[in-house]
Amino acid sequence: MTDNTVGKIPLTLLGLGAMGTALARTWLTAGHPLTVWNRTAARCEPLAAEGAMVAADPAEAVAASGPVVLCLLDDDSVDEALAGVDPAGKDLVNLTTSTPGQARARAAWARERGARFLDGGIMAVPPMIGVPEAGGYVFYSGDRAVFDAHRDVLSVPAATTYVGPDPGFAALHDVALLSAMNGMLAGVAHAFALIRDEDIPPKDFAPLLAGWLAAMSASVHRTADQIQSGDYAKDVVSNLAMQVAGAPTLLRTAEEQGVSTELLTPYVALLERRLADGHGAEDTTGVIDLLAR
Amino acid sequence: MTDNTVGKIPLTLLGLGAMGTALARTWLTAGHPLTVWNRTAARCEPLAAEGAMVAADPAEAVAASGPVVLCLLDDDSVDEALAGVDPAGKDLVNLTTSTPGQARARAAWARERGARFLDGGIMAVPPMIGVPEAGGYVFYSGDRAVFDAHRDVLSVPAATTYVGPDPGFAALHDVALLSAMNGMLAGVAHAFALIRDEDIPPKDFAPLLAGWLAAMSASVHRTADQIQSGDYAKDVVSNLAMQVAGAPTLLRTAEEQGVSTELLTPYVALLERRLADGHGAEDTTGVIDLLAR
Repeated sequence: MTDNTVGKIPLTLLGLGAMGTALARTWLTAGHPLTVWNRTAARCEPLAAEGAMVAADPAEAVAASGPVVLCLLDDDSVDEALAGVDPAGKDLVNLTTSTPGQARARAAWARERGARFLDGGIMAVPPMIGVPEAGGYVFYSGDRAVFDAHRDVLSVPAATTYVGPDPGFAALHDVALLSAMNGMLAGVAHAFALIRDEDIPPKDFAPLLAGWLAAMSASVHRTADQIQSGDYAKDVVSNLAMQVAGAPTLLRTAEEQGVSTELLTPYVALLERRLADGHGAEDTTGVIDLLAR
Repeated sequence: MTDNTVGKIPLTLLGLGAMGTALARTWLTAGHPLTVWNRTAARCEPLAAEGAMVAADPAEAVAASGPVVLCLLDDDSVDEALAGVDPAGKDLVNLTTSTPGQARARAAWARERGARFLDGGIMAVPPMIGVPEAGGYVFYSGDRAVFDAHRDVLSVPAATTYVGPDPGFAALHDVALLSAMNGMLAGVAHAFALIRDEDIPPKDFAPLLAGWLAAMSASVHRTADQIQSGDYAKDVVSNLAMQVAGAPTLLRTAEEQGVSTELLTPYVALLERRLADGHGAEDTTGVIDLLAR
């Protein structure tokens, strides 16, 4: 067996949940000397068997050489783990799920203590980590110098996308994409509910639904252009008035099929409010101005 | 100028709204003799100038040779237009926006009157009609013989997809895909609202959002497989418990950014109800059983 650790920078990881463990394995496999810590020490054992050094406490983990990656349950867990720990002179890379506000507060916390800070938002589930073809990636934001210094080691588990110096931007991008996905999944659930009791095999329906959603996802480019130009009627293909006119057919079909309209009505109500404000000839883009006040 | 009408079957179209007019133009351009009728006669004039024959009333239009395509405002408009008209021996192709129930009732209405019936659901907006590269298409369902007999002429304005003998299936597929799209657009609106007041150019954000949604749309194949197998835990990558655990970060971020949570909460509430029923280790697919009762 050859030693693949030669020249590989060491790093530390706090947090060995499903995601932390997946990250740890990719660094160990790539030959990076890795120090780990987890609140429940038993989760360190399999990784120790694979070559990880196990720190007795967070202070010892943070004191080890190289950048310190945090992948804990939530921001409160970061507070707990780092209570009384001196991160001065260290580079902290926080992959813990956070809101933009939490990430910004953590960046300020790090700065006050003499540490550099980079926040990350992971657009992947654990099985996608270390599997480049799965398409997962991590948004990073905050100190660009930290990103540049550790880009190679951060690229081991998943591709990286730096989205700006504001430490809140990685979390904001992460949450925005997940929120949009939840909307899509809500729509998908409604669609499958509509056909559930019909003689339509779900596997025959799936390619039609997937193809349609993939094609329609391109509409976000038009939406962005409308927002950036300030002209919500630019290049409109199906205007707000037409969308509202079509809604009763969607609602009535749900009722015919015995499917709750609870996932449909909030968006329809929003479209109707915007129409009542006199924007029928525009695209539906203006509902954004009703959401963000 | 050559005559491209030789050998082209004639047909009739009732309804010259934006969609009907777009359909009519493609048939005229392709050389099909076309008879048109519209409640407001003035909308027939431009098409008459392009070669369409204008019927004085629906009865005259229906009596002309070839299949009769209906593209009216709604099912009530079809009732009105066909009141007192004898469709015996005719092939009716109804592209009017309908619910599955309305399409089934219209099929029964046609059968009772000795007409054959095919229903269609148009997955396109008028500018996509006659533009194959735009990717629009029409779902058809009902009498397969009618579809086979007129497939060539029906393929002129847009690609065709036959989804079964049940006359309600075209409308059901149409509404299911549009409902899913509405969910996605709700999610997209929320995502853009989150970044609206930040220094993130929408056009920089759009490719990330579009790419993510296109990638995630592939999850419907897993959902279909879970429904068809009856095993909602099959191949689960992020289970229901994890999805619910992640929801507070989405909601808290919306609050931080001053964005209404009205489009997020119904789906989150549904996930929470399903989790409370003890399905945390499954995929989120089971919410379908809460929607369809």
